[in-house]
Amino acid sequence: VGHFDKSDEGFLSGTTVILTRDGAVGGVDVSGGGPGTRETDLLAPGNLVERAHAIVLSGGSAYGLDAAHGTMLWLEEQQIGYPVGFTPDQIVPIVPAAILFDLGRGGLFTARPDQDFGYQAAANAAGGPVATGNVGAGMGASAGGLKGGFGTASIDLGDGIYVAAVVAINAAGQPFNPATCELYGAYLEVGDEFGGLTTPAPEDCQDSGFGGSSASTTTEGVNALNTTIGVVATNLPLTKAQAGKMAAVAHDGMARGIRPVHTQFDGDTIFALSTGKGQITSECTTAAVFPVDAVCTIVLNDVFQAGADAFTRAIVHAMIDAQTVAGLTSYCDEFPTACAGTSGPATDGGAGQTTGGGGATLEESPLPIPTPVTGGGLGAAVLLIAGALFLRRRRGHTEPGGVAARATG
Amino acid sequence: VGHFDKSDEGFLSGTTVILTRDGAVGGVDVSGGGPGTRETDLLAPGNLVERAHAIVLSGGSAYGLDAAHGTMLWLEEQQIGYPVGFTPDQIVPIVPAAILFDLGRGGLFTARPDQDFGYQAAANAAGGPVATGNVGAGMGASAGGLKGGFGTASIDLGDGIYVAAVVAINAAGQPFNPATCELYGAYLEVGDEFGGLTTPAPEDCQDSGFGGSSASTTTEGVNALNTTIGVVATNLPLTKAQAGKMAAVAHDGMARGIRPVHTQFDGDTIFALSTGKGQITSECTTAAVFPVDAVCTIVLNDVFQAGADAFTRAIVHAMIDAQTVAGLTSYCDEFPTACAGTSGPATDGGAGQTTGGGGATLEESPLPIPTPVTGGGLGAAVLLIAGALFLRRRRGHTEPGGVAARATG
Repeated sequence: VGHFDKSDEGFLSGTTVILTRDGAVGGVDVSGGGPGTRETDLLAPGNLVERAHAIVLSGGSAYGLDAAHGTMLWLEEQQIGYPVGFTPDQIVPIVPAAILFDLGRGGLFTARPDQDFGYQAAANAAGGPVATGNVGAGMGASAGGLKGGFGTASIDLGDGIYVAAVVAINAAGQPFNPATCELYGAYLEVGDEFGGLTTPAPEDCQDSGFGGSSASTTTEGVNALNTTIGVVATNLPLTKAQAGKMAAVAHDGMARGIRPVHTQFDGDTIFALSTGKGQITSECTTAAVFPVDAVCTIVLNDVFQAGADAFTRAIVHAMIDAQTVAGLTSYCDEFPTACAGTSGPATDGGAGQTTGGGGATLEESPLPIPTPVTGGGLGAAVLLIAGALFLRRRRGHTEPGGVAARATG
Repeated sequence: VGHFDKSDEGFLSGTTVILTRDGAVGGVDVSGGGPGTRETDLLAPGNLVERAHAIVLSGGSAYGLDAAHGTMLWLEEQQIGYPVGFTPDQIVPIVPAAILFDLGRGGLFTARPDQDFGYQAAANAAGGPVATGNVGAGMGASAGGLKGGFGTASIDLGDGIYVAAVVAINAAGQPFNPATCELYGAYLEVGDEFGGLTTPAPEDCQDSGFGGSSASTTTEGVNALNTTIGVVATNLPLTKAQAGKMAAVAHDGMARGIRPVHTQFDGDTIFALSTGKGQITSECTTAAVFPVDAVCTIVLNDVFQAGADAFTRAIVHAMIDAQTVAGLTSYCDEFPTACAGTSGPATDGGAGQTTGGGGATLEESPLPIPTPVTGGGLGAAVLLIAGALFLRRRRGHTEPGGVAARATG
């Protein structure tokens, strides 16, 4: 994962690239009413290309799709792509992309990601910690009137299967219940990953201008154009069709974390990637009853559901890691009593970026998994995408429950 | 709306028909992994037929699709259908249908809805109260190991626009958070429609065998084949494409009310209907900025979102109105402290059926709307579908807040 963003000279926008150097089977689900995408049609089952080499998430509305071309150029230099000729340089990198609307939030309507953003974000991509908050595609994001951002979450399902999500939340709807101002996704916390996040004090909510209403909401009067975009990924081998279904089910996680969602003002789009590097090591006891290809259906269900939950959790991380900027207040600044127990925004990496404990490539030495629980159980929070394993450790501490989380970049 | 069901002689199943005598513009979204449907392809925008004359929801897995033929025969007798000849009797009724899996729950695998169920349910259809709980398509339903059922909810958005939902919840996932045993959808209560429903006492949850776990879930070990089906409806004029979008967004309501959902074991399907009898009477102030056909996009968003919320609320009603039967415990019997404040299952209509205050056709005299609130506001809970206005009044009392709800049939 790599970010590139600008927050000066009229900019407040950026681009995030999820690199899969070896290619990953891809799927997509576009459920929002105002999407901006490219290279999504090739992800349909039956079409020729099976694997994507990168996913680009970017600000800049449809103009920001230009960033994907920059990522293609970087990949071409690396000779990573779909072979279409007789020499290694005759390739076409497959780079599906989706954008979100943040035009003008930095002051200048024309200050938006271009090819250079996509090139630089790809060049910045590395294993290890992933920065969250006001970075990459989340730099200019807003959500329900507050500052949105970039977030990640992951989970170890045991049996060597990992699931992860990244999100840039930029929603017309709210990620918190206006009746209580609690983040909708808080109930899906794994271990202590949200670091003491709680429901804000009632007066905090009432005084905010967001709270005190019933749970009913409307898109009337909001900063109208938005879009939440993201990626769910697993190392479980999936077909393109299964990856598409994983993306579709991940939208359930978006629905649990944001309300309303998938409005006509949101181009909500989720990609799914399968590196295929994982294997199911335990027996699939009901495989004979409900076979789906070679993968047990229950494992599929667990992976799809874990993707949905990781997506919701990534939304929470994005909101609590975001920082106030350009007239957009962060959730933790708006509701300080909600975040009082957390360690607060990171300060050692600037702009919401926590560098964590070094970016060592952990692909070949995954974290020890204290107590893998079968079927939806939680071990170490680890994500393996293609050649880059990145993991999330919140503020550098490890939970006794076996969940290690680190703000990652 | 009409039900027909059986709970003896090996049966525990039934059929529900939503009649739209004048036809209603229809849409559908099939998001589950194991659907059973008919006449859904004609609902695609661009295909010939614009309006459906009934939607059939039925138990019986794919065998239960036979019920739709019975509904067609009843409609043919009534000379309601799509004209294909030169005389009024040369018609083809348009009856999209979806089924849920409840085979064998009454003891006999072969005791399942047939044509007669669809015919009788259509004949039983009437305006006025709609029975909920163990009725119709919800008769044999289960949800997360508890008794599922049939539920409804509706809302008045003001400006003469109504939105309603009916659901037969039969989910592999759980409609309650296993960490607290609280129904997921409880937070979307309108007024006092759930009648004092609350989070069960911790010991109630711990002792249940369902609770005490984290919020993580799996489909492992559950009664594997399921499916939640339903209909959202509005009187706002919609195109077929817009109706399809309304159905898609209603799945967000399913995701908020059930977790996991849309699994490979659920054929989760939602239809949307637009009678087109409503009109927007207030100005659409941003119409010039975001026009979508003749309808303001913000109104569309509000209607779609209200459909999603009504769907979640209907799930809650289905769960608290369901009754223990055939080894499936109801939510209120499993967690008595959650329902202690409610008036409990109705007893005056048998089997969860509350006849309420008579089935007078209210189409031309809708309930007075105390304080319509613009944009997502709540007035009287009223539903107008085609010629039949049915409303929901919980246990015969009217809320001071202006919400009248009645268990309706």
